[in-house]
Amino acid sequence: MKRLYLLAAMLLAAVGAQAQQAIFERHDTRSPLFNNDGTVTLQLKAPDAQKVGIIGDCVENGHAEMTKQGDVWTYTTKVLAPELYNYRFYVDGVEAQDPGNIERSRDVRSFMSTFIVSKETGDLGYLYQNHNVEHGDVAHVWYDSPGLGLKRRMSIYTPPGYDKGKAYPVLYLLHGAGGDEEAWLTLGRMAQIIDNLIALGKAKPMIVVTPNGNASDDAGPLETGIPQKDRPKGTYEENFADVMNYVASHYKIKKGADNTAICGLSMGGYHTFRISMLNPGTFGYIGLYSAAVRLDRTQKSLEEQLADHPEAAEQMKKLFAAKPHLYWIAIGKEDFLFGQNVALRQYLDKMQYPYEYFENEGGHIWRNWRIYLSMFAQRLF
Amino acid sequence: MKRLYLLAAMLLAAVGAQAQQAIFERHDTRSPLFNNDGTVTLQLKAPDAQKVGIIGDCVENGHAEMTKQGDVWTYTTKVLAPELYNYRFYVDGVEAQDPGNIERSRDVRSFMSTFIVSKETGDLGYLYQNHNVEHGDVAHVWYDSPGLGLKRRMSIYTPPGYDKGKAYPVLYLLHGAGGDEEAWLTLGRMAQIIDNLIALGKAKPMIVVTPNGNASDDAGPLETGIPQKDRPKGTYEENFADVMNYVASHYKIKKGADNTAICGLSMGGYHTFRISMLNPGTFGYIGLYSAAVRLDRTQKSLEEQLADHPEAAEQMKKLFAAKPHLYWIAIGKEDFLFGQNVALRQYLDKMQYPYEYFENEGGHIWRNWRIYLSMFAQRLF
Repeated sequence: MKRLYLLAAMLLAAVGAQAQQAIFERHDTRSPLFNNDGTVTLQLKAPDAQKVGIIGDCVENGHAEMTKQGDVWTYTTKVLAPELYNYRFYVDGVEAQDPGNIERSRDVRSFMSTFIVSKETGDLGYLYQNHNVEHGDVAHVWYDSPGLGLKRRMSIYTPPGYDKGKAYPVLYLLHGAGGDEEAWLTLGRMAQIIDNLIALGKAKPMIVVTPNGNASDDAGPLETGIPQKDRPKGTYEENFADVMNYVASHYKIKKGADNTAICGLSMGGYHTFRISMLNPGTFGYIGLYSAAVRLDRTQKSLEEQLADHPEAAEQMKKLFAAKPHLYWIAIGKEDFLFGQNVALRQYLDKMQYPYEYFENEGGHIWRNWRIYLSMFAQRLF
Repeated sequence: MKRLYLLAAMLLAAVGAQAQQAIFERHDTRSPLFNNDGTVTLQLKAPDAQKVGIIGDCVENGHAEMTKQGDVWTYTTKVLAPELYNYRFYVDGVEAQDPGNIERSRDVRSFMSTFIVSKETGDLGYLYQNHNVEHGDVAHVWYDSPGLGLKRRMSIYTPPGYDKGKAYPVLYLLHGAGGDEEAWLTLGRMAQIIDNLIALGKAKPMIVVTPNGNASDDAGPLETGIPQKDRPKGTYEENFADVMNYVASHYKIKKGADNTAICGLSMGGYHTFRISMLNPGTFGYIGLYSAAVRLDRTQKSLEEQLADHPEAAEQMKKLFAAKPHLYWIAIGKEDFLFGQNVALRQYLDKMQYPYEYFENEGGHIWRNWRIYLSMFAQRLF
């Protein structure tokens, strides 16, 4: 009676789709095709389309027209470096994800098809893939936020071996505007990055907490159950203790600044900036990725804003008096928030507050945020 | 310094997309539109398309041509009953999900846009939506399967209040061929169904375990890390103890058949049929949804197959000698596995093994499997 488990699949596969779930759909055009020369061919069967375009970070200049050969439209990339790439087709002007590619990512309201290029163990593409290594678990939990008057959803990664009973340090990992508690898990590849860095011996085992940073929401758009009118008005950063209290009371964690880190991208970088100021001595490791760094809505410089908000300047003083191990600022040269980060560094320099700075190519993009997490995680604990 | 949390979003929103993540994409065509008369209008801006079609279970006869009005193609459904609906556009022959609708579901390799119609508390659409009720948590864990020689991924729902320390009964919920440990959470709406039934007082709080039923995989296609050549050859149903052992050793569960249920759809129905036979006295509640019910690959009837496999007939005898509270068979009239379920019932009748039977309209579709779970969950524990 071996291999009976195949039976149901065989029976199902033999049957047509009439009144049955479309679970046996096949796409006869494989895409992406990884070519031996290191290029990648993306293709779409579309005999009746007038025009097919492609956009994405694997496309030169970001967009291109595809070429029709018979019924199939193709685009071949240049040789691609190890990375996670996104792309999308436009069929007679309408966006379409690649029907031949099961891997897709959502970024707020934007869907893209995805693939990963990896050339050797430990390269960026490798870090973002699943491998046959020990995996951490990911829980989606609802925590009580008395400060916001709401049960709210967050995602928590626990490292391999967590169930053995040991306590672990904690990284709080914050998403950007419009994102949610899934963002770092999907496009951010957080679980893969941490799994792989631990397996390679390049990061310490840690718990990673990615809350939902939108104070007025309980959860991401696919999970929210709060009518708009019932949404709270408080601020997330002033109620961050609710997140930390849940983690402390439900997980086996090592306590103290030596074992507690926080970082975030864009709006999550702003949250990191603010939450670390509001809680001096709490976080031993602080990472600002492409951070928005302002204190109010005026057009004034950060230094002028700090002068207008002396309590914030005082908080910064206390934060650095507590001597965090690492205050890490990372941003791409083309990032639209570059100027705000120049102003932050000028202020830190002037005050002689120690920090480290990493600058690379590119703008306000997930590619950079994955790189920053991969770097920052190796510096922790 | 109130409302500073808005700052980052405002700063970001003011900026163009050059070299920035496309997180502020907007779609100016809203879809779906819920009309006052109970119909739903689906629409797509596609000025350059020659032809736009739509398929889905909200479309009469399953498919239709859309109508162009100005730049926008529309289709309006008839009045829709409370349900979860799926649809997809075809733009000049190429499939496209609705760019105006963030809600999408993956079923194996098939992507559809999704919406839910609900008219009153407790109707089917209501059960599948998130509401402002107490929510259970969902963990994606990796368990050791010594039988298959693999770490494998599964999803585990714990009910609201689980963290208070009480033990709960367990439902094992199995997916169909080609599915994975996400299937019952996405199209199956398992967490919403159980949350809402508990909140309505219609189901007991329970732990729900949805493993990956493909013996040769460690995880679904987006999470797998096992090269094809390294995949094991064992059967899932003969190694189901590995799943149950993990749950027993990591969760606070009530033990014994009174507190243990199993059910599954299609191939998962076959797994339920087999696992319940192989473990008589283990499951007090057994549910076969659109189940494949065969013992080998011959074209013989189930009764003839049981005669050829006397050990299986003996297992069925032991299973019913243990007097499960409920052996529940559910299938749609148009299901391609209907005949196999007739044969099963004939056999159970002949042997005077007690069972309950539910038959409804429709075929081998998620709509039915959600309904079956909603019904079965109310009968448990």
